This record gives sequence, C-alpha cells and structure tokens, in this order.
Amino acid sequence: MAYLISLSRRLRETPFTPGVEATGVKAYTVYNRMLLPTVFEDMESDYHHLKEHVQVWDVSVERQIELNGADAARLMQMLTPRDLRKMQLDQCHYVPIVDENGKMLNDPVAIKHSDARWWISIADSDLLFWVKGLALGAGLDVNVFEPDVSPLAVQGPKSGALMERVFGPDVHDIRFFRHKRMAFMDTSFIVARSGYSKQGGYEIYVAGSQHGMPLWDALFKAGEDLNVRPGCPNLIERVESGLLSYGNDMTMDNTPLECGLGKYCKPVEGLEHVGREALALEAALGPERQIRAISILGEALGHARTAWPLIEDGARVGQVTSAAWSPDFRTNVAIGMVDAVHWSPGTELFVETPQGLREARVRGRFWN
Amino acid sequence: MAYLISLSRRLRETPFTPGVEATGVKAYTVYNRMLLPTVFEDMESDYHHLKEHVQVWDVSVERQIELNGADAARLMQMLTPRDLRKMQLDQCHYVPIVDENGKMLNDPVAIKHSDARWWISIADSDLLFWVKGLALGAGLDVNVFEPDVSPLAVQGPKSGALMERVFGPDVHDIRFFRHKRMAFMDTSFIVARSGYSKQGGYEIYVAGSQHGMPLWDALFKAGEDLNVRPGCPNLIERVESGLLSYGNDMTMDNTPLECGLGKYCKPVEGLEHVGREALALEAALGPERQIRAISILGEALGHARTAWPLIEDGARVGQVTSAAWSPDFRTNVAIGMVDAVHWSPGTELFVETPQGLREARVRGRFWN
Repeated sequence: MAYLISLSRRLRETPFTPGVEATGVKAYTVYNRMLLPTVFEDMESDYHHLKEHVQVWDVSVERQIELNGADAARLMQMLTPRDLRKMQLDQCHYVPIVDENGKMLNDPVAIKHSDARWWISIADSDLLFWVKGLALGAGLDVNVFEPDVSPLAVQGPKSGALMERVFGPDVHDIRFFRHKRMAFMDTSFIVARSGYSKQGGYEIYVAGSQHGMPLWDALFKAGEDLNVRPGCPNLIERVESGLLSYGNDMTMDNTPLECGLGKYCKPVEGLEHVGREALALEAALGPERQIRAISILGEALGHARTAWPLIEDGARVGQVTSAAWSPDFRTNVAIGMVDAVHWSPGTELFVETPQGLREARVRGRFWN
Repeated sequence: MAYLISLSRRLRETPFTPGVEATGVKAYTVYNRMLLPTVFEDMESDYHHLKEHVQVWDVSVERQIELNGADAARLMQMLTPRDLRKMQLDQCHYVPIVDENGKMLNDPVAIKHSDARWWISIADSDLLFWVKGLALGAGLDVNVFEPDVSPLAVQGPKSGALMERVFGPDVHDIRFFRHKRMAFMDTSFIVARSGYSKQGGYEIYVAGSQHGMPLWDALFKAGEDLNVRPGCPNLIERVESGLLSYGNDMTMDNTPLECGLGKYCKPVEGLEHVGREALALEAALGPERQIRAISILGEALGHARTAWPLIEDGARVGQVTSAAWSPDFRTNVAIGMVDAVHWSPGTELFVETPQGLREARVRGRFWN
C-alpha cells in the first residue's frame, strides 16, 4: 500500500523546497522534523543516474548545531569518544555521540570553526536537546542553537566538473572529508568533499536561507550539458556502499562498537567524555553483535519498513534493517545487525521477510 | 500537489499499525519519528463522524518519558515552571517545558506514579534528550528512558458508552484530566479522561505492545452498533477547539506566555526550575505577541504548510500557523500568533495565503 504524507508547518520546508517540487519530487520522508525528498523519477532510475552523472540533493535535514562560547571545545569533547585534540580547522570529523551508557544518540559530522565555535551536522534525532541539556546541567559557558544553515549536496561522478563551473577550479584542492570556504555571488559558503553516497561529491553548507534558490538555480544552469538532475540519498546505493542510517540500522539500543565505529572510540588516557566507562568495558569484552553486509537470495524484495528477524536453527540471531534490490549486483543488498557467533563472512542464515522466509548470507564487506 | 510518504524502520510503526492499515488509513504524518494517521475517509467526513459518534485513535506518537529514581521528583520540577508540589497521584498535569531562556521545548502531560516515578507524555520533539542531558549534567540520581507505552485514544460523544462496554461502569468515575487503573483481559492500563479533541473522551496508556491489537479489536467489536470508526486528531476540530500543536502553532522561538500558557507559569516564591529568571522577566513586562483565534474570510482555503504572514498597513504583525475550512462554522478557522498592538478581538488584518491576500479577523475565543 502507498500512503500520502500530510504536510504542515511542523514538517519543515527547506530553502530548496521550491526547486525540489518544481523539478518533480514524488515522495518525501521526514528527518529532523523536516522534509527530505526520497524519489524523483523512480528509485532505480535515480540510482542509475547517480552512478553515471551528477545530482543536486536537498539535504537541509542535516541540521547544524552550533556550539559557541568559551566552553565550546570542552563541551564538544564531552560529547564524543573520538579524540578531537588534533583536529584541524579544515577537517570534517565523523563523531559518534553516546549517552552515559555508551548508547548511540546520533552519528553526526563535526566542523571546527575555532576552539570557541563548532558545527555538528546531525542525523535524525534532536541532538540539540542533549547538547543544551548537558551544557545547562553542567553549568558550561556556551550558547547552543540551530543556525540558519542548510546543506546542499552535489553527488555523482561528474560532481567535480559541475562544482568547478560554479565555484572555480580551486574546488579540486579540497581533499576527502576536508572543507574550504568558497565564494558564490556576493557571499561564500563552507564547501566540504563529503556526502551520503560513494559516488564522489561535495556538500555546500548554505548559511542564510535566502541564498538557497540562487545556488540551486546556478547549479542546474551550469550543469545542463552534464545531465544534472535533482536527487536524494538513494536507498539502493547507500546499502551497496554500507552507509548506515541512524534510526534504521542503529538506534539508541546500539553502541558504536556494534555499529562498526570502534576506530572512533578507542579509549584514550586522560580523555574525558560521556560514556567513557561503558565504552571501555565494552571495548574490553567485545561487542555482542555487529553491523554486517547481508545478501538476501532470490527475487527482488520490497524495502524494509520494520526490522526483519535473522534466524538460525529456529532462533533469532539478528535482524535486517535496510534492504533493496540491486540492479548492478543482481541480489537483494541489505544491512543487518548479527550476533557474534553468526557474524563471520559466509555464514548462512534465514531472514523473515514480508514475502516469506529467504536464505541470506553474511558478507565480509559491502558492495561499493 | 500530493506526495507519497516513503516508509522505513526510522519512521516507527506502532502496536496499532496493523489495525490502522486494515481499516483504511489514507495518509500519515510523522511525529516523534513515528507514524501518526491523519486521514481515514476524508478530513471532513472524519470531522463530522468525530462530532457525532466515537472514534479510536492511534496516538502512540505521544511517547512517554519515564523518570525513575531518587531524584525523579526534583528533576520533574526542574523541568517545568508549573508548581507540582500539590499534584495528586490521579491527576494529569499539562506541563510546559522551557529552556534556560524561557523558550518552549515541548508541551506535554505528566502523570505521577509516585515521587520516584513519573511519565511525561510528549509532543513532537525529542524531549528525552533534554531530560537525559540535564540529569547527567546536573549529576542527578535518576534513570530517564522511553518505556514501551503507547496511548490509544477513544474520542467523541459516544466515547463513554464504548469505554463502559470494555472497561466497565467505573470508567464514568474518572473526572476530566484525572486517571485510574482499569483492568483489561489479564492486564490493566492507566485510563485518563483526556484527549486531543473537545468532543469528550479517554486516553488509554497501553503498557506492553503485545496488548495493543487485542485492545484495538475489543473496542471495535464492542462498538459496532455505536458506529465506532478509526480516527485521528482532526485538523478542523482541533483548530475550532483551539488545541495548539507544538511545531505548528508554537516552536522553540516562543514562550509559554506567548502561547497563552501563563496560568501554568506563574512565578512561585522558592520554586526552582529551568527558565525561572527569563519567565519572571517576561511576566513582568508582558508578552510581545500571543496566540489568537483568527477567522479568515472568503471561500475555503487549503491547509497551511508554512506560516502565513498577517499584515496591517503593509507591515507584518503576526502569522497564521494552522488553518482549515470549518463546515459547521462556515468560515476558515485559524490559529495565529499576533503582535500585542493588533491582538484585540475584532481587529481587522490581512493574511497572505497561497490563494492570495485575504481579510482576517482576530477573535476573542475559539469556536468550540
């Protein structure tokens, strides 16, 4: 069954909504209480186009949290187990955020403007409330708020060519997960080499909603002969690429080690952060389950609306949380969380899908 | 334009989703990262039925936050300007929650199980993160988490008749905004005389997802001759009734005084809570703008996807945030926030709608 979405002010529009709707968006999801496009032509056509050309994505839903004030750096390090002491001003850092029990609250990307000013580009939870609450409870000298910043992503193999036409050749100097301030008309934006696909690309942190549609229009005008199209994070591509989705593949029930994020959470002598004891204990014992790439055999399945149980010998040994038919790999690609005994590559399991029980294989790596 | 909603695990299903979909839900919104039905037959038919008969509403999206531990009562009072010292164990208390600047974070309803155990039934924001962050930052001895509790509402003039058939005649002993534990099969639920309509009704706090569909089925079976139907908060009815929606009619930009919630926020000598100074200052100066009922003249308008500016003499003097055509009152009923000089009943303003500039009138009260 297909259902309509009822629109209201509560599901926030973005600076790019007029462009998204004029170019034929067909479906939305809601992410951080804001509209995120999910389909333009259809998911498979959008997928093929992303892998061959270049797309402009409205990812305003990656809301920013600004930490601003004397205690900003101290608060930022309290928030994450990742050691930020050597972070440079042009780096983007993926920073898992955990609570005092070491459970995932969000998996954002941080940018450091200065010791006294940071942005956190968030996944789908009101992390603002956690950061504000923690700062207030601990009596820190810092302002925490959501600034008027809406990221626009340019993704796909021709993204470099398109970005050069709008921002100039210096855009090619930006290395992966680094950023640089680039001029646009009478303003400038932070431009990062990043994005929620593995097809290459950039994210433009559009500060000031009034600049949204002029930038959108400039990208589409400059990219006409590159076959530029509107797009959005593509379920098939992201599962092939092993890009996790907070709320889908991991929730507040999971730890960063379970999510395969252990490299960002190594215990560091003298580093104080929330969840330190819980994560140190888990690092010593090892996680009980972990994210894995999973192939589901047989014909094309629908997408997972809920977690699908993974079964061995009649017992539940994990779950599949994202799944899609991959036209390029001719299998159902999936992301799942699998118990320790069963997570080795090649392990044969069953998965309970709405289309019946299916054979599944644990893989050693994702596809892209 | 109508858009589809893309379903995924991130948009959580509820214990009642099988019932909601079997009985023909047509559209959803997302609220607290969970599915909230918005239309069954059509909004006007749903409206008329709600005012004449009885409906069962899946309002699982009113997630609960449990505060559990020695410091639970202390934390609960820190959270809200409302004086909770005399709150009784069978009361439901509407408790505005503000940050340190006196800005609205949520407008939930609290239930007190004991000094050491509270539930907060939340509007659309991750209040859990605020409460957890504050508790951790302040070093309080309390567990804060989302329990497996999903409210089911029974609303409409025949709600008492239906509830009696399922829970027995004692249900009539429950006074407005009070609650009582009532037996159902081999379990029991907290049942409150409350709900997000002014047609009368109850909210059943279903603890344990496995009890969801048995209760849903029992209500529909018992209510066949009462013309019971599935329903949901109805935009037309809630605007007529002046029931505010967090995220629509008020956001983190607003104070409780602006929202007309001053009676819950009177400064009390010796009461410590977050935002005390900011609210005391505003109480002394008076709010700069306030929620008002607004009639928009002329033929039926569509619903507001964004805030519609209210205009006088070419200047913006407020905004309309919810609007719907009322079949019963033969006008466009609306909720808006109006600047102080212009908020008197009878004031004539203009409102910029997607269907053009319209005349509007500030009213002294809502319709129902």
